[in-house]
Amino acid sequence: MIGVDWGTTRLRAFRIGRDGGIRERRVVSRGILSVSDGRFAEALREEIGPWLAAGEDRVLLSGMIGSRQGWKEAPYVHCPAGAADLAAGLTDIAFDWAKVKVVPGVSGNDDAGVAEVMRGEETEVIGVLTDFEGGGLACLPGTHSKWARVEGGRIVSFTTHMTGETYAALRGSTILGRMMRDGPTDGAPFEAGVRRSGQPGGLLHHIFGVRAETLAGRLIDSDAGAYLSGILIGHEVRAGLAHASGAVVHVIGAPELTLLYAQAIAACGGFPERHDGEAAARGLALIGAEAKWN
Amino acid sequence: MIGVDWGTTRLRAFRIGRDGGIRERRVVSRGILSVSDGRFAEALREEIGPWLAAGEDRVLLSGMIGSRQGWKEAPYVHCPAGAADLAAGLTDIAFDWAKVKVVPGVSGNDDAGVAEVMRGEETEVIGVLTDFEGGGLACLPGTHSKWARVEGGRIVSFTTHMTGETYAALRGSTILGRMMRDGPTDGAPFEAGVRRSGQPGGLLHHIFGVRAETLAGRLIDSDAGAYLSGILIGHEVRAGLAHASGAVVHVIGAPELTLLYAQAIAACGGFPERHDGEAAARGLALIGAEAKWN
Repeated sequence: MIGVDWGTTRLRAFRIGRDGGIRERRVVSRGILSVSDGRFAEALREEIGPWLAAGEDRVLLSGMIGSRQGWKEAPYVHCPAGAADLAAGLTDIAFDWAKVKVVPGVSGNDDAGVAEVMRGEETEVIGVLTDFEGGGLACLPGTHSKWARVEGGRIVSFTTHMTGETYAALRGSTILGRMMRDGPTDGAPFEAGVRRSGQPGGLLHHIFGVRAETLAGRLIDSDAGAYLSGILIGHEVRAGLAHASGAVVHVIGAPELTLLYAQAIAACGGFPERHDGEAAARGLALIGAEAKWN
Repeated sequence: MIGVDWGTTRLRAFRIGRDGGIRERRVVSRGILSVSDGRFAEALREEIGPWLAAGEDRVLLSGMIGSRQGWKEAPYVHCPAGAADLAAGLTDIAFDWAKVKVVPGVSGNDDAGVAEVMRGEETEVIGVLTDFEGGGLACLPGTHSKWARVEGGRIVSFTTHMTGETYAALRGSTILGRMMRDGPTDGAPFEAGVRRSGQPGGLLHHIFGVRAETLAGRLIDSDAGAYLSGILIGHEVRAGLAHASGAVVHVIGAPELTLLYAQAIAACGGFPERHDGEAAARGLALIGAEAKWN
């Protein structure tokens, strides 16, 4: 089969063998935002045409391609959601050259009953956690980071943290950004920010420390960005570990980001395991194996 | 004497009697940013000329006028700082028509040793807290809110919270702002945000709830701003009350802002007392009474 993780800014296609292994891969910056006039069928055929010609006739898509802004909306499946639940909620798409199905997103509620949704991350979480006796804690860092708890191979709850977008907004639109110059993103200033996040005073106070410490001459302008990043990621990680102190956390994503999160998780008492984005291929294979293709 | 609270965007002048009472007041949008080429002397004379002509010859300034961007930099006095400490740290300014002195800002360290500074707020805090047996907790809401603890008439410690600026950045530069329309700033959505701030998950998760609850149809776009404001102010207030549960909090500032903070403080278990900006006049009178004018 062919698995495609088709997000907002990127398309990652995998040719997957009967054993679930990746035979071939293709990554292009052809996210759904770059496809005009709804020409998703043409875009997909251009990207995976050779594999179709070679006889593949099953295509499983995950990610924002299944959102209202994508090819066809695939309604959310509510937690708990595992590979079989997601396979039962697949949405078919008309396509001339193969059977195409879209993985649904997952909806849930946090501890306080507030609504949550994810789309795309569920496939990566299933792909990774199935290997760990079907349970554990996963963290997918990003603009809107997700923390998901998996039990018995099913996502039972998850939360979203606006860490990446808040960093960009604070850096781009407040006094904090005006004193920053580019510099290393990890290292001692990042670690100092993570430590800061565990001290009294709260996030809104801690971030002012970027300015105060710079004014006091204890933080240089090329380290200020890493310090702010450490404060925000530290707050996210402490919230994620609040009821899971000492837990293994499976961090899934791009290496430069999972490296930072792994440092923060270790500093906050968790045990990080890093996984790259090919977790999506494994999740697509597992969901595809549960699907009815006839 | 004449007391002038001269900030970034506004000048508030008070003619103060020997008993410390306000005889006359004048508020103009002639902050230090609007004074070009360092013509502060002319600006001051234009604003308080009639009072000088009537015989006043002592002028005490507080606020950003004493910063590097102001008329003359008045070095910070370190905590603990009361009226006598501030009076001992006054900086003289040359002025042809009267004796002019500037109140220093205050520097300190928070519980974790991180540097803190304030300039202008110290005068308001002294003005209010002196009436309450010289002790207590003060909150000055704003772009950069301050929480100050006063003991024996002296500011012993304080913290800054970037609440107002973070609200503006999140509203102006993230997905949260794109779904907001103007609406009431207080009421049920604000209170719901304050309650949200006390639930598990942390600030970066709570703010995503503005989007999630809107998508779920449980929050309308004209209430989303008040909900976000409640989340942020709630986080600030909970941090401010962390070691002062059940405390009286003197909230000093513009009525529309102290009203919101009073609601949040009451919801978080504190007891708010609201004070308006004329606290500055009282503080200037107290500091002026301690100063050497000879």
